[in-house]
Amino acid sequence: MTAPSSPAPAPSASRIPALNWHAAHRTSIQLRFADVDAMGHVNNARYAEFLEVARMDMSAATGIQGDDDHSMLARLELDYVHEIRLGQTVFIESLVERVGRTSWTVAARFVADNVPCAFARSVQVRVNADHIPEPLPERFHDLVRPLLARLDVPSEKTP
Amino acid sequence: MTAPSSPAPAPSASRIPALNWHAAHRTSIQLRFADVDAMGHVNNARYAEFLEVARMDMSAATGIQGDDDHSMLARLELDYVHEIRLGQTVFIESLVERVGRTSWTVAARFVADNVPCAFARSVQVRVNADHIPEPLPERFHDLVRPLLARLDVPSEKTP
Amino acid sequence: MTAPSSPAPAPSASRIPALNWHAAHRTSIQLRFADVDAMGHVNNARYAEFLEVARMDMSAATGIQGDDDHSMLARLELDYVHEIRLGQTVFIESLVERVGRTSWTVAARFVADNVPCAFARSVQVRVNADHIPEPLPERFHDLVRPLLARLDVPSEKTP
Amino acid sequence: MTAPSSPAPAPSASRIPALNWHAAHRTSIQLRFADVDAMGHVNNARYAEFLEVARMDMSAATGIQGDDDHSMLARLELDYVHEIRLGQTVFIESLVERVGRTSWTVAARFVADNVPCAFARSVQVRVNADHIPEPLPERFHDLVRPLLARLDVPSEKTP
Repeated sequence: MTAPSSPAPAPSASRIPALNWHAAHRTSIQLRFADVDAMGHVNNARYAEFLEVARMDMSAATGIQGDDDHSMLARLELDYVHEIRLGQTVFIESLVERVGRTSWTVAARFVADNVPCAFARSVQVRVNADHIPEPLPERFHDLVRPLLARLDVPSEKTP
Repeated sequence: MTAPSSPAPAPSASRIPALNWHAAHRTSIQLRFADVDAMGHVNNARYAEFLEVARMDMSAATGIQGDDDHSMLARLELDYVHEIRLGQTVFIESLVERVGRTSWTVAARFVADNVPCAFARSVQVRVNADHIPEPLPERFHDLVRPLLARLDVPSEKTP
Repeated sequence: MTAPSSPAPAPSASRIPALNWHAAHRTSIQLRFADVDAMGHVNNARYAEFLEVARMDMSAATGIQGDDDHSMLARLELDYVHEIRLGQTVFIESLVERVGRTSWTVAARFVADNVPCAFARSVQVRVNADHIPEPLPERFHDLVRPLLARLDVPSEKTP
Repeated sequence: MTAPSSPAPAPSASRIPALNWHAAHRTSIQLRFADVDAMGHVNNARYAEFLEVARMDMSAATGIQGDDDHSMLARLELDYVHEIRLGQTVFIESLVERVGRTSWTVAARFVADNVPCAFARSVQVRVNADHIPEPLPERFHDLVRPLLARLDVPSEKTP
């Protein structure tokens, strides 16, 4: 399974997909001194805390707040492309990539001082009070429609 | 990109790959009250903190400690299968899945009260003092060899 | 040292001193889901993180930012009077209670949804790069003068 | 209220009281990389997390665990005397300084690599499910008796 000659990680740009970020829900993140670790940058675990802030903010804005109150994270992917440092202005842009029967996927982009610096994909599962998955309500699809992700292919120019 | 009829998440078992966990490096995790969130279980972001404990412990045990001091996380994947609760005995089992030119990948399994409950994959990049990637030393391969991950296929029984 | 008949804690009001809070520096705190613990309220340790946000904000606003970059916390007192819950609007009001030779003391009041809910006193020491205390610059006194704390005695009304 | 000529903080030794620490309950603390901040030492807020670990450990050991499940922190004092750094072996030693009607006070000493480095005093209040204070059970006094704090005055030598 080990490939000693495997290439270095792909260039940063390709690790943050070109989605319709202009349509994304936008959440400002207040950095804390305690977010920064001994490397002098925001610790990787804190990105997951920031994502919770963004998910709750998006849930409130779309009207799916009640749902989010009873949801659990099933999977998290994080690509750290550029460091985030104290003093930077940080936003998270969130799009809904997929809506399933009991779960949905959020694609999020971290932007620090206007530079995209990280990408995250979170799979959230709706659960009941006993933390058992349950179907998303019908209206869920309507509520998140304005935030649906799509690949942002540059339009070809005609001569 | 949205598939309203997409299936529910795959059954838990399949989200934790069958690797040679018996050969893994094992790190005990001390839970803290502050690790638990309002859902009554360990908060998802804390799993990333636990992984740092496991990586440092594995680095010290294998002798790659100096390297780890100058490494950064490039990518993190986390599959949350079962909740972890206060009072449980928690271990992280770590295997090295891949060694590249400047980076390596660790596959980790969270075990709480003897039940596998989460899986993580971390891509770590070796960097210099300026946080610029630099090649792993030759001996790196030798040091992690005992911890290399491989699929743990059940052996067929002959009659 | 144990006094089985010692009284219950003093009423809440008396644990937050009546200072000139109207003159205080005010910092908004963004709550995170991960700030809340299994009790359903903001975890006590997170108050200390919030205070760091407030101190840095106050340092920047007063122009003592450079100093704060090289300061360490020597002592912290926290009185938790009312719980803080997710969804509340939280501010920290900060006043400077004392300026010493190498240290200064900040008195801070936590306000959630307009209700004072906690009080903190932090003693910060100016240190050099080796974390050795060093004297505060002369201008420090001038910079913090507008934020000096004083007891806010209600004025008597004349008939 | 400002005293420009006030003396520097008292010498470290005097900030950690001389109590009967040899009788204290002892809890080992597992440090995490994320505990360390940009100053290169354990962040001040994490000390409060460590104290929760120690309080829960002491509660379980003394048999007052059920009580601790329904208690809230009313006041916290922390004196940071020496920095704690990653790689150090850290213990918290806890004594019970006071038992009141609904609350009790724990005095704790942080020891890193055998050097006392911080002191904490926590006032914990027993509460019911609605977070309203309620009297401690009678047996509470008996359970914590072995851990009662007393000043550890050096015995006089007779000629």
